[in-house]
Amino acid sequence: MAHTLDFYFDFSSPYGYMASTQIDDLAHELGRTVNWYPILLGPMFKTMGSAPLVDIPLKGQYARHDFARTAQLFDIPYTTPSPFPIATVAAARATIAVREQHGMQQAGELAKALLKTYFAQGNDISQWPAIHDTASALGLDAEQIQSATQTDAIKNQLKTDVDQAMQRGVFGSPFVWIDNEGFWGFDRLPHVKMWAGKNQA
Amino acid sequence: MAHTLDFYFDFSSPYGYMASTQIDDLAHELGRTVNWYPILLGPMFKTMGSAPLVDIPLKGQYARHDFARTAQLFDIPYTTPSPFPIATVAAARATIAVREQHGMQQAGELAKALLKTYFAQGNDISQWPAIHDTASALGLDAEQIQSATQTDAIKNQLKTDVDQAMQRGVFGSPFVWIDNEGFWGFDRLPHVKMWAGKNQA
Repeated sequence: MAHTLDFYFDFSSPYGYMASTQIDDLAHELGRTVNWYPILLGPMFKTMGSAPLVDIPLKGQYARHDFARTAQLFDIPYTTPSPFPIATVAAARATIAVREQHGMQQAGELAKALLKTYFAQGNDISQWPAIHDTASALGLDAEQIQSATQTDAIKNQLKTDVDQAMQRGVFGSPFVWIDNEGFWGFDRLPHVKMWAGKNQA
Repeated sequence: MAHTLDFYFDFSSPYGYMASTQIDDLAHELGRTVNWYPILLGPMFKTMGSAPLVDIPLKGQYARHDFARTAQLFDIPYTTPSPFPIATVAAARATIAVREQHGMQQAGELAKALLKTYFAQGNDISQWPAIHDTASALGLDAEQIQSATQTDAIKNQLKTDVDQAMQRGVFGSPFVWIDNEGFWGFDRLPHVKMWAGKNQA
C-alpha cells in the first residue's frame, strides 16, 4: 500500500491513454509501483448528471482539439479514433481477468497496449478481434481471457472496482490516488510529483 | 494582436485567481502583454447545461480540496472564501470601467488586486465596500468607478465581452487565447508555454 500508486482510467479516455504513457515513469521516480484499475465512466456520469466530454456544448469541441494538441505537445503517438467514444466493458474485464490470473504488472502491460491499440493505431477495442490481437502480441492466451470475462467472478470484480473507485471519490479519467490524496486529470501528473516531494518521507 | 495574450477569468474562480498570479510572468516570457477579460460563467454554464464546479456531486468535493492543495503546491496565498461562489458582475464592470478610462494595464492591476482581495484575504468582492478599498489602494477613484458601472456603456460592454468570449469558444475560467489557440485551466499554463515554444516564430 505504502509503495503503490493507484491509477484509474477508462479505456475510451484520451487523457487516460496519455497518462498511461507516463504513469510508470512517474511511479518509478517516486519509488512506487502502479495498480491499474480500469473503470467505467458511464455510472459516474450518471451520478454527476454529466455526459461524455465530447457531447457537452462548447467543451466538446475544445476537448477534441485539445486531445490532439496535448498529445503533440508531449510527443505521444495519437490518432483521433473512430468510433469514439466506445463501450469499454470488454477491455476492462479482459484487464481484470489478466490481473486475476497473472498479477498486476501483466494487467498493466495489457492496459497500456490496449490503450495504444485504440488511440495510437485507431483499432476499435470495444470489439474482441482488436483485444485478441493486442493480448496475443503480449504472449497472453486471448481465448482464455475472453472466456474468463464471461464468468460472474470477473463481471462482479469490475462492478466492485467501479463501486470502490466511486466511494473513494473517483469521478473521471485518469485519476491517480497516492496515499490519501486523489488527483484528477492528465495535467495533474506534475502535481502528483510536487505533492509527493512536499509530503513524502 | 500578435504580441498579446488574452486572459479570460471569472472573479469567483479559484483557478482563475491562481492563473492571475502567473499570467504576467508567462506573457513576459513569451514577449507579450496580457489583455484582461473578466467574464461571467453563469451564461456559459447555461449553454452547457452545467453548474458551478462545487455544486456537482463527487466533483464538487474534489474541487474544494484541490483549490487549497493546488495553491499550496504553487506557493500561492489562498484562503477558502466565504461566501463562495459569489456574484461577480460588480467586479467585472469595475474592471471594464477602469479599462475604458485608464487602459488595459490598469484594468489588469485592478483585476489581480480584486482576485487577491477575495481569495487571499477572504473579503467579499461581490460587495462595493471591498471593491472600493481595493481600487483606492491602487490610487483609483472608487466613487467614479462605481458611477461608471451604472452606465449602459459599461453594462453593455461586459455583455459584449462575454458574448464574444463564448463565440470564441471560452466556456470556463481561466481561459487563455494565444494567436488562434485556446487553453482552458490553470493547469494548462505550462501547455501555453510549450505550444508557443513549438509554434511561435
